[in-house]
Amino acid sequence: MGHEHVRKLKEVKEIVVGGTFDVKPERQELSASLGLKAYPSFASVLDDPAIAIVLLATPNDTHRDLAVAALGAGKHVICEKPVALSTAEFDQIVAAAKQADRLFMVHQNRRWDEDYLTVRKLLQEGTIGRLYHLESRVLGSRGIPGDWRKLARHGGGMVLDWGVHLLDRLVFLIPGKITQVFCKMNHPTGQEVDEGFHLFLTFEGGQTALVEVGTRHFQPLPLWLVLGTNGTALIKDWSLEGSVVALGKDEGDAQPIVAGAGLTKTMAPRTEAAEVRLSLPVVRSDVRDFYRNFVEAVQGRAEPLIKNEEVRRIMLLMEAAFESHRRGAVVAFEA
Amino acid sequence: MGHEHVRKLKEVKEIVVGGTFDVKPERQELSASLGLKAYPSFASVLDDPAIAIVLLATPNDTHRDLAVAALGAGKHVICEKPVALSTAEFDQIVAAAKQADRLFMVHQNRRWDEDYLTVRKLLQEGTIGRLYHLESRVLGSRGIPGDWRKLARHGGGMVLDWGVHLLDRLVFLIPGKITQVFCKMNHPTGQEVDEGFHLFLTFEGGQTALVEVGTRHFQPLPLWLVLGTNGTALIKDWSLEGSVVALGKDEGDAQPIVAGAGLTKTMAPRTEAAEVRLSLPVVRSDVRDFYRNFVEAVQGRAEPLIKNEEVRRIMLLMEAAFESHRRGAVVAFEA
Repeated sequence: MGHEHVRKLKEVKEIVVGGTFDVKPERQELSASLGLKAYPSFASVLDDPAIAIVLLATPNDTHRDLAVAALGAGKHVICEKPVALSTAEFDQIVAAAKQADRLFMVHQNRRWDEDYLTVRKLLQEGTIGRLYHLESRVLGSRGIPGDWRKLARHGGGMVLDWGVHLLDRLVFLIPGKITQVFCKMNHPTGQEVDEGFHLFLTFEGGQTALVEVGTRHFQPLPLWLVLGTNGTALIKDWSLEGSVVALGKDEGDAQPIVAGAGLTKTMAPRTEAAEVRLSLPVVRSDVRDFYRNFVEAVQGRAEPLIKNEEVRRIMLLMEAAFESHRRGAVVAFEA
Repeated sequence: MGHEHVRKLKEVKEIVVGGTFDVKPERQELSASLGLKAYPSFASVLDDPAIAIVLLATPNDTHRDLAVAALGAGKHVICEKPVALSTAEFDQIVAAAKQADRLFMVHQNRRWDEDYLTVRKLLQEGTIGRLYHLESRVLGSRGIPGDWRKLARHGGGMVLDWGVHLLDRLVFLIPGKITQVFCKMNHPTGQEVDEGFHLFLTFEGGQTALVEVGTRHFQPLPLWLVLGTNGTALIKDWSLEGSVVALGKDEGDAQPIVAGAGLTKTMAPRTEAAEVRLSLPVVRSDVRDFYRNFVEAVQGRAEPLIKNEEVRRIMLLMEAAFESHRRGAVVAFEA
């Protein structure tokens, strides 16, 4: 992710990458080969007065200590997600930022995902009526990659890795308090951390949401399914393939159809006249606006787009999800 | 459904339809037009010594009284599903059958669904490894059809209508006790009964299952998704379109792909070499075997294929689902 930030920052004129530090020698060499300064230690980064911003792209269990140190050295800090292993850790970071009067912002880059922004626009437009249920998924079959992401002590597992993104976006789609959290995690290859999960949320307005991540799922379901009282939107994948099907002409009761070993009226498909097919209101975005906003916020010219209180709410939500799974219970949240 | 039974029974030589009775005059006329005897009352059916079997295809709240009366009159009884509105009602029927020494069997016809039988065979064959999660859905957009199916006092709603089928089949796919039940129902058009639901089950072996029914869902998901440790089976619809994708060559860690506003290794798709695509082991069936088995069971030549204790377990499970939704809690079941 550090490399990816460097790549993206090439096109952000407001920020110049002053150098990098990595505990792995081969990553230090990569930096040098890219013409970047490879600092000999994290301390030497903090000691360099030319550095105004420190970006942390390290295992999750290191964020708290590194962020507190960088803020204490007078740096502004961008931090990878999940921001910390607990709300308590996160609160220590926020306190350090406040004390140092420096900006701390979490890289919730998936708020710039065009699939998510398209769902948000669809809901704003009201095409499918009132939202009553929403499903947000990412499903793959390759298992958890790499090394530390499989280990609990480093903050591994899918709730903290992908869940944090899906939840961070979801709460902008359904306003109001979350009242109930139910979560069931899975471990199909026997890892100590969750390899996937189903998370079911209930909102104070009565809406529900199912958030699912899977890493041993060889035939994915759509990224999004958005159920309104008058229609359903579906986004299949990151190419934004998908469609909106809304209520058409009222046909009254269906004729029964043969379905398996029986008949059904209820599940009879609509005729073409009884439904309206619409395109998704595709939204385009530029994730580099994240960095631009960070600079503007440091300069006092804009509010941070990722607010620490938003990040904190999702930390609490993930803690409720872990508690739900551990206790085998629905956890009351913001109720 | 009465008409459908008559139609199906034409090809079951072991049973001759002696006549019908319906409270609606137009259905009485339909019977006469089909050359069937239209009995003037339910009592007149029970009084006819030529009738050995009574088949009940009536609103759910009438099953108990009609079944108890028919059994008391010495008839064997076939009953539509859901068998009753509560386990207590069902127990009264079973007690009446025992006292009368007559056979009572519920028409759980969807045990003959070829999609379900195909999933069962797939799991028996072990192609996808050990099952860890299973999803069974039926989704439509036409709402709840007809009249009484929308009313709670008649036993309307989707848990009792379609849920009873999906659960009845599901428990043959995952052995062992169900330990936890979580259910959330939805009412997108404001009906008093549930118009759909998500039901999440946990089994003592650690497997989980998601059962979903929707009637305001304009873009369906697959009927079945079967997640094994080594592969995933998907059945799209009742035509048995679908496939099995299983683990192929080990490729190690993936290269990151661009997905939305970020990179992901975890969700990178498999290459062709890293997966094996197989056909579904399609099973064919004849739902008329239900009636043939009934006759054989009456004659003492076979065990009933639908056992009352199996039906009772599903009644209890649906009651746990209603309780879970009402209380907003996970309900312990068979734990």
